[in-house]
Amino acid sequence: MRRFIDLADFSRDELLGLIELARRLQARPEPQALAGKVLGLLFMNPSLRTVASFQSGMARLGGASFVITPGSGTWQIETRDGVVMNGTAAEHVREGVPVLASYCDALGIRSFADGKDLAADLGEHKFAAMAKLIEQPLINLESAVNHPCQSLADWKTLDELGIPRHGKLVLSWAYHPRALPLAVAASTVHMAAMRGMQVVVLQPEGFALPSAIIDKAQRAAAASGGSLRTTSDRREALEGAHVVYAKEWASTAHYGNEAADADARRSLTHWCLDESWFAEARADCRLMHCLPVRRNVAVADRLLDGPRSVVLRQAYNRMPAQMAVLYRLLKQTE
Amino acid sequence: MRRFIDLADFSRDELLGLIELARRLQARPEPQALAGKVLGLLFMNPSLRTVASFQSGMARLGGASFVITPGSGTWQIETRDGVVMNGTAAEHVREGVPVLASYCDALGIRSFADGKDLAADLGEHKFAAMAKLIEQPLINLESAVNHPCQSLADWKTLDELGIPRHGKLVLSWAYHPRALPLAVAASTVHMAAMRGMQVVVLQPEGFALPSAIIDKAQRAAAASGGSLRTTSDRREALEGAHVVYAKEWASTAHYGNEAADADARRSLTHWCLDESWFAEARADCRLMHCLPVRRNVAVADRLLDGPRSVVLRQAYNRMPAQMAVLYRLLKQTE
Amino acid sequence: MRRFIDLADFSRDELLGLIELARRLQARPEPQALAGKVLGLLFMNPSLRTVASFQSGMARLGGASFVITPGSGTWQIETRDGVVMNGTAAEHVREGVPVLASYCDALGIRSFADGKDLAADLGEHKFAAMAKLIEQPLINLESAVNHPCQSLADWKTLDELGIPRHGKLVLSWAYHPRALPLAVAASTVHMAAMRGMQVVVLQPEGFALPSAIIDKAQRAAAASGGSLRTTSDRREALEGAHVVYAKEWASTAHYGNEAADADARRSLTHWCLDESWFAEARADCRLMHCLPVRRNVAVADRLLDGPRSVVLRQAYNRMPAQMAVLYRLLKQTE
Repeated sequence: MRRFIDLADFSRDELLGLIELARRLQARPEPQALAGKVLGLLFMNPSLRTVASFQSGMARLGGASFVITPGSGTWQIETRDGVVMNGTAAEHVREGVPVLASYCDALGIRSFADGKDLAADLGEHKFAAMAKLIEQPLINLESAVNHPCQSLADWKTLDELGIPRHGKLVLSWAYHPRALPLAVAASTVHMAAMRGMQVVVLQPEGFALPSAIIDKAQRAAAASGGSLRTTSDRREALEGAHVVYAKEWASTAHYGNEAADADARRSLTHWCLDESWFAEARADCRLMHCLPVRRNVAVADRLLDGPRSVVLRQAYNRMPAQMAVLYRLLKQTE
Repeated sequence: MRRFIDLADFSRDELLGLIELARRLQARPEPQALAGKVLGLLFMNPSLRTVASFQSGMARLGGASFVITPGSGTWQIETRDGVVMNGTAAEHVREGVPVLASYCDALGIRSFADGKDLAADLGEHKFAAMAKLIEQPLINLESAVNHPCQSLADWKTLDELGIPRHGKLVLSWAYHPRALPLAVAASTVHMAAMRGMQVVVLQPEGFALPSAIIDKAQRAAAASGGSLRTTSDRREALEGAHVVYAKEWASTAHYGNEAADADARRSLTHWCLDESWFAEARADCRLMHCLPVRRNVAVADRLLDGPRSVVLRQAYNRMPAQMAVLYRLLKQTE
Repeated sequence: MRRFIDLADFSRDELLGLIELARRLQARPEPQALAGKVLGLLFMNPSLRTVASFQSGMARLGGASFVITPGSGTWQIETRDGVVMNGTAAEHVREGVPVLASYCDALGIRSFADGKDLAADLGEHKFAAMAKLIEQPLINLESAVNHPCQSLADWKTLDELGIPRHGKLVLSWAYHPRALPLAVAASTVHMAAMRGMQVVVLQPEGFALPSAIIDKAQRAAAASGGSLRTTSDRREALEGAHVVYAKEWASTAHYGNEAADADARRSLTHWCLDESWFAEARADCRLMHCLPVRRNVAVADRLLDGPRSVVLRQAYNRMPAQMAVLYRLLKQTE
């Protein structure tokens, strides 16, 4: 394994192997496994779980990390090719990324969607351009439409909770004051489909996931015996659900148009998940969310603090899941 | 030992034991004592000594650290319960704190007083609410009215300087352009009282420490054979003093009222400590300050650079004192 | 070796020894050499290569690091002596620097030129004042007119590329929208002269390097059999060159006068290096730059992405060069 960019780059069995390795490292730590290794972490966007769990996980394997956050102690970094750099950015990714990679044994990069051009974001143009610059092991810490570390941790969480392989997972749109990226929504439907689940995407009109995302998940579902469909009918969506995964995302009907997106979401503040949503779900239906979550905006306090919520377990599982990724990337190179 | 939040949670002998351990770790390093352990450090407020000395101390014990600073590479974090999170904060402590704690073996949190509601700050509502969220070992890196790491380091410093157990320590208010928190003032009088010292609080009118702080220190003094009184008479306060501890703090008469506080302190710029203050003190009277200190505003250059000043020694002692705390918290859990 | 502040503090043989050590540590890692040691890194100014390569290099030698960036999670730090600190800075270097030094085995400090008073910058007043405050091993991470880590890495790069000891190196001024410091320009001419090269400084009128910088390099050239001259004639400068080192710097004729500097550089946007500059140079002439570089402002895309460019190799060499410095500073103290 040389790169961890998209779950779709791996077979179902390879991912099950990673989850098994994560469980093993949790049960039987290997505090010297990556001694002398260095992980570089480049954050073009904010982070809490990712920056903390990668540093901690790397340390627990005996390695070390450094964190670079452009604009905070470091130069602003330009990502566009061919531009005349007479603005605020003093550094270009064409230098910055290879230089950082040359200092470390594996590099993680977080680079959110620009949220302007849907085709460019769906094509992962920005992340792919950076990935092309280096040969070293590379980890996607969340790109325009992928968050494989989150999805691997979520898969592990679903397994631990005993959610059946073919159980029903509802990805529900949730309200947020701003147009958030599609990465977690896209990764979640793909992961759940790949796991073999009956996936239902529940969203208000104008917020359907792009067909490229739906098609990719459909293909994964077909291969694993799962299914995928979308609806705007909450009652029907939730009926018999094992898991509801809440997530905020931008209007794809108005992608890149801030004003139109704001108009479209203005009337959707009631898409704040609370216990009433679960009336038709299984009694033990779980609530998932990748965090951070705006309380009483996207999800109600009582739901987050109640027994359905497994958001803290999801977040914890980031660490062992990523330790497995680091282990595979960095033990293999010896 | 599971938590290090307030010196009052420990007996005098337990604290002496910690200081003895700090001395031992200084003299005979144990570079593998905490191998494989991870310390998380969450800073809601700025830091220099704390962030550097904890990372260095942890490394000297063989462990690793990660640092999270909300708003700087990380989401803004909401601390109030029950709010509708439609403002700038994307994350709530109810998720953020347990998640970070789940990645580490001990978590340190810095969370200054809000400086608005004196009762809430004295009650440590904000820190206590965060502490309740986790089971893991927890270290107070400075809360509304407590700075136990500073006070433990200061106690060690007083011992090293040969200041008698029952010597006289004057906590003197010092000028600062803004209304600073009460934490160090409160911790210092309590620590000195617990050590058995004759503590005198010297402050201008309107800047008396709240009775809850004074009462707590009085109880500690009674138990250890020390004493505590307050005065606005500089000459009387300083007479025969072994140590003057300078500290800036908010007006408690006008707590939370910025304009009134500013009015109250406007005429107090002469509360900038200089050599003239020490006329009635012992010839070898020492100057202490927790740093950072505004030179020629709170304390004059010549005093800080002269032989009385032990501020650098205090700051250095943060590291061994905290190493002792980390050792007790993290060796114990095995 | 106790300090690494200026290449001029070392003999040619000492520097060749450091480069040899860097090569050895690259070929035969010593992952336990600095176990238990802590490096402090204080950045008064932004950094990417320095902050990443020092942390990574220290980790590869078994040590640990902490990073302090005033104004980003840490108090603003005052550097002027004798001031009344009633502004934004809460901490003074007179406390901050010795305190940080007391937590670590070696301290690195980055402190760019103020760019206001040329004599003060040339005299390194600010860095020297900080250096005087501590006894501990100290590393210059770039000061007003010195960047010894960059120059040591560049020397190693020149050796690896097989550039003859007495080869021709052209330091060429390059356009930048702002008046950048002189540190890399000054360090580069001195390093190249010390290496024995034929150094030519090419710059537009008004941008001549100060005589103190030229004189220092001349002395180094005299001692090593090299030479140094300056010109504004590009064709003559580049003729037969082995290396062109592009660098942006402030107008010394208008030093500290932002408006006059802006006027002086307004007509110089054609000082953006591209392939046409190399017409008279050797066919295998190399392009060097310390990075970050503004693409298509200081240097054209095609030149940076073409075969002449060795900027990534220069950046990589920061790590082994600095590992050699750390090794000498910190092994020696045992």
